[in-house]
Amino acid sequence: MPADIAQETSQATADRAREALWRHDHASQALGIRLIEVGPGYCRAEMVVRRDMLNGFAIIHGGLLTTFADTAMAFASNSHGEMAVATSLGMDFVTSAREGELLTTEAREISRTRRTGLYDATITTGDGKLIAMMRGRVQRLVGKPVGGI
Amino acid sequence: MPADIAQETSQATADRAREALWRHDHASQALGIRLIEVGPGYCRAEMVVRRDMLNGFAIIHGGLLTTFADTAMAFASNSHGEMAVATSLGMDFVTSAREGELLTTEAREISRTRRTGLYDATITTGDGKLIAMMRGRVQRLVGKPVGGI
Amino acid sequence: MPADIAQETSQATADRAREALWRHDHASQALGIRLIEVGPGYCRAEMVVRRDMLNGFAIIHGGLLTTFADTAMAFASNSHGEMAVATSLGMDFVTSAREGELLTTEAREISRTRRTGLYDATITTGDGKLIAMMRGRVQRLVGKPVGGI
Amino acid sequence: MPADIAQETSQATADRAREALWRHDHASQALGIRLIEVGPGYCRAEMVVRRDMLNGFAIIHGGLLTTFADTAMAFASNSHGEMAVATSLGMDFVTSAREGELLTTEAREISRTRRTGLYDATITTGDGKLIAMMRGRVQRLVGKPVGGI
Repeated sequence: MPADIAQETSQATADRAREALWRHDHASQALGIRLIEVGPGYCRAEMVVRRDMLNGFAIIHGGLLTTFADTAMAFASNSHGEMAVATSLGMDFVTSAREGELLTTEAREISRTRRTGLYDATITTGDGKLIAMMRGRVQRLVGKPVGGI
Repeated sequence: MPADIAQETSQATADRAREALWRHDHASQALGIRLIEVGPGYCRAEMVVRRDMLNGFAIIHGGLLTTFADTAMAFASNSHGEMAVATSLGMDFVTSAREGELLTTEAREISRTRRTGLYDATITTGDGKLIAMMRGRVQRLVGKPVGGI
Repeated sequence: MPADIAQETSQATADRAREALWRHDHASQALGIRLIEVGPGYCRAEMVVRRDMLNGFAIIHGGLLTTFADTAMAFASNSHGEMAVATSLGMDFVTSAREGELLTTEAREISRTRRTGLYDATITTGDGKLIAMMRGRVQRLVGKPVGGI
Repeated sequence: MPADIAQETSQATADRAREALWRHDHASQALGIRLIEVGPGYCRAEMVVRRDMLNGFAIIHGGLLTTFADTAMAFASNSHGEMAVATSLGMDFVTSAREGELLTTEAREISRTRRTGLYDATITTGDGKLIAMMRGRVQRLVGKPVGGI
C-alpha cells in the first residue's frame, strides 16, 4: 500500500476516536451537545440554547459558545486516533443567540503536523446567521491513542 | 468636584452593577461560580471542578475554563455601570485541572476607552499553580446602564 | 434610492480610501508591498520576501508576515470610506517562507457593525501553499472619513 | 550536581543563543532594534519609530509593533539553547506611537514544557505609557541547538 494512502485517516479511525472520547465527555453531554458528523479532521455538532446557558444580558454566555466550538475542535482533532489537547484558542463573538435557538458548530482542520494542529470552527443558527468564530490550536501526543490502553 | 475624580468608578457603582448582572446570570450560577470580590475594573471568583465539567480526558473542559474567566471579565468590565459585552477573547491552557479542584479566577482591566475595554484574567489553583490565561476585549455601550433604567 | 442600496459601499469609495491611505503608508511602501485589488471589504496584495525580512533562522520574520496581512486588513477595513484602526489581531504561522518567494495576502470582511469590523486574512505562495492566517479586529471611527479634511 | 539545577538555563547559554540568533536576524537589524538584555526566558529591547515605519494614519504600523514584540519573544524563547519557533501570537493595540518615539519591549516566559513555550510581551514608551501587548506561543525543537551544527 502506498505510503501516502497509509497516512490518510480512515472514517473507521474517526469513529473509534469519537466513541472513546464521547463516552467520558461529561461536559458536552451535560450541555446537550449532539454530535452530528465526525470525520477525519472534521466535526459538526448541534446545541440548543437553554435557560441555564444565559448570562446577565439574557443571551448565551460567551464561554458556553466557546465550549460548544471547543468540543467540535476536540472531536475533529482527535479523529486521527492520537490524543490531541487544546493549548490555545481565540473566539470572536459576532451576533448574540437567545434561549431556544438551535446552534450548529462546524470545525475544520486547517493544518496538521506530527505534533500540532490548527482548527477553525464556526457557530451558526439554522438560517445561516453567523454567531461566532473560533480558531484553536492543539498539541498532538505522539504515540498516545485516544481511549488507549 | 474635580472632573478626574468624577470619572472614577465608585465601589457603590460596581456593587450595583454586580447585583444587576448576577441576578440573571443563569450560566454562572449553574456552574457554581461564586463571586468573591468585584470592584472598579476588577473581579475575583471561585469555582470547584465538578464531574459534569470534565471532557473526554477526565480534565476540565477548556470551554468551561473559558466560561469561568469570561464571567470574571463580565463583572470587571460592567463594574463601571455601563453595559460592556465581550467581542473577542483568547485563551491559553497551561495546566489541566481535575475533579474536585478549587479554582480561582482574577480579571483585571488593562485599558479602557469610552467604547472599548481590554482585560486579562488568570485561573489558578489554591496553591498558586497557573491553569490558564485569558485576554479579552469588550465593547462598551455608551448610555446603556447595567440593569437598565 | 432604497436605504439598503444607499448603505452599500461603492468601488469608487474604496478607490478613494485606497489612494488616501496609500499615499502616507510609508511602512507598506518600504516593504515593497503592492496592492493588487481593493474593493468594498476586500484587499489583495503581494510582497516578495527580501533578505532584510529574514529572522535568525533564515526564514521570513513572523512580525513581517503580520505586517503584510495587517496592511491588507487596513485597506479592506478602510474601504468603506470611514477610518478604521486595528485594535487587536491574532496570527497563526503555518509554513515558513524563504528569501525570494512571492507572497500573496487576501483580506476579507467577516462582519461589520457601525463601530467594529472583523477580518480574516490569509497569506499564501504562488502555488497556493498556506503560509499564515490572521484574524483581526478594527474600531471604526464614525464620522471620520479616510483622508478627511 | 542535582537534576533540578542542571535543568536551569545559565546566562552563558542565553548569551550564546543571543549571539547565534542575532548574527542572521536581518529583519530586526534593519528595523534598528537594539537588544538591551537577554536572559533565561527574558528579553528587553528598544526601537525608535522611524518614518518608514508609519502607516497611512501617520502612526506606527501595527505589524511593525508586532515585529518588535515578536523579536523579543524570539530571543526570550531561544535563550534556553534549543531552537524555538513562533507558531501563533495575539496582539492588542492600546495606544498609538508616532515618529521619533523610543519604544521598549519586554518579553517574559509564562510557561515552558519540553515542546512548547508561552510568552507575554509588552511595548511601552519611555515614560511608561502602554502601547501594545502580545501573547505568543512557540514550538520548541528538541535536540536542535540554536546556531547548531
